[in-house]
Amino acid sequence: MFLNASLLSRAGAAGLLFFVAVFGLHAQPVDPLPSWNAGTAKARIVAFVQAVTETGGKDFVAPADRIAVFDNDGTLWSEQPMYFQLAFALDRVRALAPRHPEWKTKQPFKAAIEGDMKTLAAAGERGLLELVAASHAGLTTDEFAAVVKDWLASARHPKFQRPYAELTFAPMVELLAYLRANGFQTWIVSGGGIEFMRVFAEQAYGVPPQQMVGSSLELKYELRNGQPVLVQQPKVAFIDDKAGKPVGIHKAIGRRPIAAFGNSDGDFQMLEWTTSAPGARLGVLVHHDDAEREYAYDRKSPFGRLDRGLDEASARGWTLVSMKDDWKQVYAPGR
Amino acid sequence: MFLNASLLSRAGAAGLLFFVAVFGLHAQPVDPLPSWNAGTAKARIVAFVQAVTETGGKDFVAPADRIAVFDNDGTLWSEQPMYFQLAFALDRVRALAPRHPEWKTKQPFKAAIEGDMKTLAAAGERGLLELVAASHAGLTTDEFAAVVKDWLASARHPKFQRPYAELTFAPMVELLAYLRANGFQTWIVSGGGIEFMRVFAEQAYGVPPQQMVGSSLELKYELRNGQPVLVQQPKVAFIDDKAGKPVGIHKAIGRRPIAAFGNSDGDFQMLEWTTSAPGARLGVLVHHDDAEREYAYDRKSPFGRLDRGLDEASARGWTLVSMKDDWKQVYAPGR
Repeated sequence: MFLNASLLSRAGAAGLLFFVAVFGLHAQPVDPLPSWNAGTAKARIVAFVQAVTETGGKDFVAPADRIAVFDNDGTLWSEQPMYFQLAFALDRVRALAPRHPEWKTKQPFKAAIEGDMKTLAAAGERGLLELVAASHAGLTTDEFAAVVKDWLASARHPKFQRPYAELTFAPMVELLAYLRANGFQTWIVSGGGIEFMRVFAEQAYGVPPQQMVGSSLELKYELRNGQPVLVQQPKVAFIDDKAGKPVGIHKAIGRRPIAAFGNSDGDFQMLEWTTSAPGARLGVLVHHDDAEREYAYDRKSPFGRLDRGLDEASARGWTLVSMKDDWKQVYAPGR
Repeated sequence: MFLNASLLSRAGAAGLLFFVAVFGLHAQPVDPLPSWNAGTAKARIVAFVQAVTETGGKDFVAPADRIAVFDNDGTLWSEQPMYFQLAFALDRVRALAPRHPEWKTKQPFKAAIEGDMKTLAAAGERGLLELVAASHAGLTTDEFAAVVKDWLASARHPKFQRPYAELTFAPMVELLAYLRANGFQTWIVSGGGIEFMRVFAEQAYGVPPQQMVGSSLELKYELRNGQPVLVQQPKVAFIDDKAGKPVGIHKAIGRRPIAAFGNSDGDFQMLEWTTSAPGARLGVLVHHDDAEREYAYDRKSPFGRLDRGLDEASARGWTLVSMKDDWKQVYAPGR
């Protein structure tokens, strides 16, 4: 099978990618989502993708507008027994504690050092960001990335005893690739820190650093030994959660997504923003109902609470994914 | 000439684009920069692009890392006799003045209404952003885009009597296309407002909204008649100028650019950040020395002042583009 090169040249980048993607699918009529069991969730996702990519169809969406946004914690990887970035921050605070005697009496540092999870959970996303902010102030972006990389290489998840970066959801990684093969741009839009995610997310998900939106600290440009660096400041610049997610999406992308994937009420406004616009839209919530292979939690969890989303998903036309029933496997086998 | 399709499939998106780009150039051995006169500036730009795209060459850069950043005002379009966005803001303030009697005595509004350019120039980038902020508070992002679109359709530049969006520099538009044809991702990194630029920049430069970094106002997510909207707040969120440019670049892109194009001291740190890293790097400053076809200004201009950059360009290996000598034409002919 051959393609005419000058035709390719004229088609332009986006059209070309789309052409190759469609060609690829026709050449390999295999299930693009093998980790998903047949069922409503899978059928709805596939029907949506077929609808927006069908040239001449009533729901066709040009490739440039095929923006899909994904929450990270609890949607692309696990978030129990605590956000992985919180586990990282706690390890970091404990390591730095000897240099900061004042942390012994100051929250949320006291709780971090003592492992007081109840107090930490109550501190929420902002508490986590405070821990990150204070424990990382003064590090350059390069230094911070190196610290995260070391931690990811050495730390192990308490339940699964595997490196955290292996605890990404195989069905979601497939879904990301499936969307990209259909001309979508896939973005991560997470309450987690953007600098933290950028260390592992490109390798884990195939999403490049410029397609990530996250919470962030203020950065300061300065010269160290004559070389410019960006230094993390002990001040939160942006919290990419709840109503902050549509704001973060608009600032970074400038286009309204047509598909949004989340798992908690922190993703509610992102799904609302995505699915309220006219045309074919897809809103998906991953429901953690699999105590055996992962965790079972929703309305009462301190991390990844899903309450309003459960109540309103059906009326809003959002698809609820049952981890237990819809996923053939949760994690890829250990390496 | 034919390409093997399965080979294309395996090469991946970035490699594929690069392959097609190179193929395209070989098939059409025409000058990719016809609006540039032969000279040092053009030769350096072309040599840089050839060096970083030469497979196996010592300066080869993978397509994913071919990030080029462009200032907008004074680099991609004119910025005299005042930033075009300032002209827009002044028109908007005058139109809204009857509803705001307090502006008659309050700076910088008083100066805007009276056309007192000296006071306005002294108010600088922050003054401009204050005008934009106050005069646009309460507008949704969609409403704001519509207002800008109307203005761009009706307003005319005082010297050239053409719509502002026609006053983009033809040699720079060619350069953007040339870089993209060589596998670069082209980004705009401007002190101007990102919401303002997004209205015209994709059509004018071929740069999509998600590849723009700019100054911004705070946005608030809210429901109006049950529909979610993003409302501009009368508060500056980020100023993408001077040391803010490397910060904006890092937050949005997460990769360090290998080429940066500017024209004023507001671009100094962006060029410094780009060209201080090891490997082949390109820093370019457009020098406005063409009083006849555009404007001649540098060290003393209130808009687009170029002083330190002129002093240090040579020692830092940055290329100075003489608009007068290096450009065959400044603007594309009128439509």
